[in-house]
Amino acid sequence: MLADELKTYDIQQLEETAERLRGKLIAAVKENGGHLSSNLGAVELILALYKVFDFPQDKLIFDVGHQSYVHKLLTGRELDSLRQEGGASGFPDPQESEYDSFIAGHCGTSVAAGIGLCNARDLKGETFKVISFIGDASLGNGLALEAMFSAEEKPKNFIVVLNDNGMSIDKNHSALYRAISKATTKSKYRRVNSFLDKTFKPTSFFGKKLRRFKYSIKGWLNRNDFFERGGFKYVGPVNGHDLRELIGVLKDIKNLDKPVLLHAVTIKGKGLEAAEQDPSRFHGVGKNFAENENSFSVALGRLLCAKAQEDPSLVAVTAAMTDGVGLADFAQKYPQRLFDVGICEEYAVTMAAGMAKGGLFPVVCIYSTFLQRAYDEIVHDVCLQNLPVVFCADRAGFVGADGKTHQGLLELSALRGVPNLHIFAPKDCAELADVFDFAKSIKAPCLIRYPNGYAPNLGTRQKISEYFLWETLSDGDGIVVLASGARAVARALEAKKLSGLADVKIVNCRSIKPLDARVLDAVAGKKILTFEEGYKTGGLGSAVAEYYADRGIPARLKIMGAQEKYFAHASAQQQAESARLCAKDLALNLQAFAAQE
Amino acid sequence: MLADELKTYDIQQLEETAERLRGKLIAAVKENGGHLSSNLGAVELILALYKVFDFPQDKLIFDVGHQSYVHKLLTGRELDSLRQEGGASGFPDPQESEYDSFIAGHCGTSVAAGIGLCNARDLKGETFKVISFIGDASLGNGLALEAMFSAEEKPKNFIVVLNDNGMSIDKNHSALYRAISKATTKSKYRRVNSFLDKTFKPTSFFGKKLRRFKYSIKGWLNRNDFFERGGFKYVGPVNGHDLRELIGVLKDIKNLDKPVLLHAVTIKGKGLEAAEQDPSRFHGVGKNFAENENSFSVALGRLLCAKAQEDPSLVAVTAAMTDGVGLADFAQKYPQRLFDVGICEEYAVTMAAGMAKGGLFPVVCIYSTFLQRAYDEIVHDVCLQNLPVVFCADRAGFVGADGKTHQGLLELSALRGVPNLHIFAPKDCAELADVFDFAKSIKAPCLIRYPNGYAPNLGTRQKISEYFLWETLSDGDGIVVLASGARAVARALEAKKLSGLADVKIVNCRSIKPLDARVLDAVAGKKILTFEEGYKTGGLGSAVAEYYADRGIPARLKIMGAQEKYFAHASAQQQAESARLCAKDLALNLQAFAAQE
Repeated sequence: MLADELKTYDIQQLEETAERLRGKLIAAVKENGGHLSSNLGAVELILALYKVFDFPQDKLIFDVGHQSYVHKLLTGRELDSLRQEGGASGFPDPQESEYDSFIAGHCGTSVAAGIGLCNARDLKGETFKVISFIGDASLGNGLALEAMFSAEEKPKNFIVVLNDNGMSIDKNHSALYRAISKATTKSKYRRVNSFLDKTFKPTSFFGKKLRRFKYSIKGWLNRNDFFERGGFKYVGPVNGHDLRELIGVLKDIKNLDKPVLLHAVTIKGKGLEAAEQDPSRFHGVGKNFAENENSFSVALGRLLCAKAQEDPSLVAVTAAMTDGVGLADFAQKYPQRLFDVGICEEYAVTMAAGMAKGGLFPVVCIYSTFLQRAYDEIVHDVCLQNLPVVFCADRAGFVGADGKTHQGLLELSALRGVPNLHIFAPKDCAELADVFDFAKSIKAPCLIRYPNGYAPNLGTRQKISEYFLWETLSDGDGIVVLASGARAVARALEAKKLSGLADVKIVNCRSIKPLDARVLDAVAGKKILTFEEGYKTGGLGSAVAEYYADRGIPARLKIMGAQEKYFAHASAQQQAESARLCAKDLALNLQAFAAQE
Repeated sequence: MLADELKTYDIQQLEETAERLRGKLIAAVKENGGHLSSNLGAVELILALYKVFDFPQDKLIFDVGHQSYVHKLLTGRELDSLRQEGGASGFPDPQESEYDSFIAGHCGTSVAAGIGLCNARDLKGETFKVISFIGDASLGNGLALEAMFSAEEKPKNFIVVLNDNGMSIDKNHSALYRAISKATTKSKYRRVNSFLDKTFKPTSFFGKKLRRFKYSIKGWLNRNDFFERGGFKYVGPVNGHDLRELIGVLKDIKNLDKPVLLHAVTIKGKGLEAAEQDPSRFHGVGKNFAENENSFSVALGRLLCAKAQEDPSLVAVTAAMTDGVGLADFAQKYPQRLFDVGICEEYAVTMAAGMAKGGLFPVVCIYSTFLQRAYDEIVHDVCLQNLPVVFCADRAGFVGADGKTHQGLLELSALRGVPNLHIFAPKDCAELADVFDFAKSIKAPCLIRYPNGYAPNLGTRQKISEYFLWETLSDGDGIVVLASGARAVARALEAKKLSGLADVKIVNCRSIKPLDARVLDAVAGKKILTFEEGYKTGGLGSAVAEYYADRGIPARLKIMGAQEKYFAHASAQQQAESARLCAKDLALNLQAFAAQE
């Protein structure tokens, strides 16, 4: 394994390896999509860590995992089929390799998980080193900040590597970042720093002896006691692309038994000129760097721009996903009314609650998988006060290549029980606008969920309203299919054809909460099949079952939804296949159901 | 209203008012229970705010709300029936008074909500002041830290009052606190500070003119740029019990249009000697300062002490609720194995995941209402990795006097869909031990939910095991009652008697996930009534409905659970009555169900 060979490499060999790895990264992401800029910026840091530490005895914990591709390459994983079914995951996963010490995918976890591992190690009397590798954007997340500042004393032999590329996913809005970056921008500091770097060159005699001294002076000059207050010895800033310097400093740190924060300054997108110039464009990229057209995200962006013109009280809130949720144009047109708070989902939601309380109409746009990071804020700050906040849960349902950590299968089950919350799922981009208008008219908390990727327009028979919460798309006297969400509705229409059952009735359940009592009462006693792309437990089917039970109506109900498991990376279509939620699966179920007496 | 009169009071009258208010606080909490120490410490701060600002035009936002009683007294609310049905809530609530600008109850919300209100104000061109009032313990919460450090620029005319009493609910473990308190402990600083205070006495000529200058020097000496980095002008520290000083400083701040953080140092429990000596004992107190005996919390504490002796890998984790969840003795006996991380629920859970990954067996003890603050960490860090972490959700079900913000009705609905998670609800304290052993044996994520207050022992017929997930407590051929949780099971047994229906079968559903398929299959086709103290939506009833639907069995099911609403403060029994979840309600339902053909 390359990780073992590295130990014997000299600096020049390591530099050559860095070059080679960069080439692999670019090729892999071009082929399969993924996160490019962050990985390009972390090449030398990862190499230096592998040169100095002994993984997997020592533990390396990534945060989010956008910087883990080199680590994957070094530990026997090829990126040829990165993020594809059967290929390497785009994120660290202990099930994939023993070198992946902890799961990653969501933000801000690495320091807390690292401290937990250290606590376990110390109680068990073990001696390995634990390294949490975190980007500057992740550090602003509440979980990371809690971990930095909560515990009275940090464990020994614990190293936080702060990979500071000065970028969040979009750009760094963070006041925290200002604090961190102080060191690298103060001109007086810079001059002395440069003097020290020259005087104590790592290659010089003094450099070798006095490296630690140099970083002590740097740290002192820096006066950045932000991290010292968290109980860490602060070391840095170091040039995160200088292998010789990095290896030297890491060797010193390895011999300290204190908790250390190593501040490494890197360039996001390093080595690919286009990515260096515009790192956020290359942050997360689809195959061949293509963009999705005719997606809900694009439709939402257009919709909010139009609505913002009509209604000056409309504001948009997001958490470092301005581009991802389709708000790039909105940000251009209404910069004062776009609140991108960085990777702070909790703050985004409670701040939105404050804005709603103050008379604005906030639309909070967050991916489904990240919305659960603000669960309590949705309940306690928005719904308890019954405030008019609309949540747009993008990437709901199977999420495709991002896999396990990013699936949008849970939010319906998670949030259906929250009092005052309304939940909608439009069947296509055109209906998104209707649902949005309806949600706005309710003046109460609303969640609108929709998937990523291409979504065909299916045509509307009846706009959503209080009297037509649901819409019958295809009529019939036989089995009633209650389908919810764009993919489920499209598949239901196809399944009717595949099944050959002309009497199947297809209903578009675009409102999951409340249910459409008119329709449910009309079809009571019939064979009913619910169909959704979300966990079966607690979802639409469950809601329908509750409805009939509540009224003492014995229901003949079949529930189709995702099994309770974490679906690995593959295309969203493949994931639906493995969950048996495709049109053909529904068609088979319809035939079997029809055959029952 | 007293709030208006205050404007005309001089310092002496205000000081007398402070005395009077303290008397009222102590009497009210003695009578009704509630939060004493925090409120005693905040008297002068609140009075000074009311003297200087114009509420409710200006907005005062509390954090958690443990310090809001004086504010309630000033704004027309009596505390005679505090936290009782129909009396004042123990927390701020906009539905109770227009002076309550935002909900409070959970921690860390005030800064985010305040910024949201400011954003709304500024976009609408309004001019009032917004004041977020936060304790030092709350500031360490991730949501608060996100709000402090996230936004690029803080709004103008925004004041954060940091009420620094140097205490968390238990004690302050926080590294953050070390940072804040630096100013007040450095001896050199203290000397200069005292010189400044003497030289520029607020009553002296220079004092009046140069007050702002004094606090600038203090701030500079302090060199506590922790808050300046968050974009605030730091003012302080000031003596939070000196009305003259407070009013002077607040007047100055009112005229600044910058975002300001005012650091006020106070004594928790001020004015009640016993509370000053032992503020954590007087933090939250029941009526007449009594303690609950024979409660699940006490039972859990004993259980964990015993288990810890058997199993050196057992560690306990909590978030500033060591006493509340029953871990006081554990903390004494096993200080190295008790991790109380302060009010950082997210960190608690992810850190526990790290410890589990490192080979320990963490038991995370958090109130049901606060567990949802770590929703994503439960899903992403614990359950996705299928780690052996046991969550003990104390105060599940109706919570009583704490009311709306603290109800434990949601966690079952919220978490039932999470893959890999097992969910249990023992019927009594004796069964807690059995369930705990069973949960431990599974070596997977488990949640054990139980209510607060007195719980009678009901006697066990069959210990929980893989083959006896559920237990039949009273047999019969008629209606099957599936009851889950201590209160529901006790009421079900009583209801059978009340109903006069000797053939009712009572089943103790101590495992909600997984369900007991053996029992469900055996009773399929019978009349089934599910009964639980939690939201009806997505709870046990919903799970049973799903089970039968999945197998194509038309169920004759009736679901009894709490309606989807936020239940206000009252006794837990009164709350159950208002939700129609008492024994008599069940008895009536049984009779009606029995009468159906």
